[in-house]
Amino acid sequence: MASQTKPVLHGYFRSSCSWRVRIAFALKGVEFDQVPVNLIKDGGQQLTEQYKTLNPMQQVPAVEIDGITLSQSLAVIQYIDETRPGPRLLPADPKKRAQVRMISDLIASGIQPLQNLYVIQKMGAEKMQWAQHFIDRGFQALEPILKETSGTYCVDDEISMADICLVPQVYNAERFKVDLEKYPTIKRLNQTLREIEAFRVSHPSCQPDTPEELRG
Amino acid sequence: MASQTKPVLHGYFRSSCSWRVRIAFALKGVEFDQVPVNLIKDGGQQLTEQYKTLNPMQQVPAVEIDGITLSQSLAVIQYIDETRPGPRLLPADPKKRAQVRMISDLIASGIQPLQNLYVIQKMGAEKMQWAQHFIDRGFQALEPILKETSGTYCVDDEISMADICLVPQVYNAERFKVDLEKYPTIKRLNQTLREIEAFRVSHPSCQPDTPEELRG
Repeated sequence: MASQTKPVLHGYFRSSCSWRVRIAFALKGVEFDQVPVNLIKDGGQQLTEQYKTLNPMQQVPAVEIDGITLSQSLAVIQYIDETRPGPRLLPADPKKRAQVRMISDLIASGIQPLQNLYVIQKMGAEKMQWAQHFIDRGFQALEPILKETSGTYCVDDEISMADICLVPQVYNAERFKVDLEKYPTIKRLNQTLREIEAFRVSHPSCQPDTPEELRG
Repeated sequence: MASQTKPVLHGYFRSSCSWRVRIAFALKGVEFDQVPVNLIKDGGQQLTEQYKTLNPMQQVPAVEIDGITLSQSLAVIQYIDETRPGPRLLPADPKKRAQVRMISDLIASGIQPLQNLYVIQKMGAEKMQWAQHFIDRGFQALEPILKETSGTYCVDDEISMADICLVPQVYNAERFKVDLEKYPTIKRLNQTLREIEAFRVSHPSCQPDTPEELRG
């Protein structure tokens, strides 16, 4: 370990980007503390001046680790991967690494930002339709890519950052009632991954800040 | 070189994500061929079935390199970095690498997707206001981060992927008439970077598909 103090994740149980980081910590077997940032309560706790110093974008997650504060989940995941022992989260082969990053970025840049809380709040009555449109558009692109790259997991048979991005995005798709039957490869991969311990313990239904009625 | 055939960039002169890849090739001194994909003409050449096989998201860029086809500019840039000699595009130190990725992702996930052509076309008469809002929101977060991390360039005194993302995003900000005076660090870094050869030769004003009236 690069540091003796535990990393601190400032996140929200239902945030897909917070869940990505929780999966990465779990896969690596890294213990961490969680500080809940409730995106709904008090008009949004991410909007306080105090939280802004941790993540100037006023989004979750923010991670305090090894004396620095990082935001942007893929930057955090790759930092964890590069500094912690345990299974690697990106393959050794450069072409496979590129495919993992392509899939991760398709989700993290091409889908999630267009259906996150801040954006859909701007859409008012159209928010469901807007979110569905952008998730469907992304999944239509992702499905043929994953059909090519996947084995047991998104890229071959090794769990990677691509899988870490996929599962929380499918969870969002389900929340927005996107029909997953159109995406058999995505559906299959998600089902396989959801059985894995690191994806189960990090699930939004069992976090310290999960409300009682959503626990399962 | 991992392959003897030149990489092929399918891109558009004015696309900020295509420009990112052009800068990376230029910094590494890698020769490449360009195939223009006109995002406006014929209703958008990125929408053809033929192009869809290169990039299922029907966005630019797509890059054919070493026998694989990649989309998502940051995946492409990191692949170039990991497989080509020349100056590295991410620092050796893991914490600095994380900062480079955080800044790159803040732009590539937090700003660009919300002001790209596809999204603003949905906004109709409000498109200018929408784009300005999301660029300003991102720059308000980026300015204090860069104030901390920057030296001559975005992270210390080494040109990195963060710089590759910054300059095309500032170009977009200028197109959408965002007031850069509010962001002195961003403005300073952009001015410094714009003088560098790799950023000049890759500029939208001098590409094979730049229309005559926009050349300069």
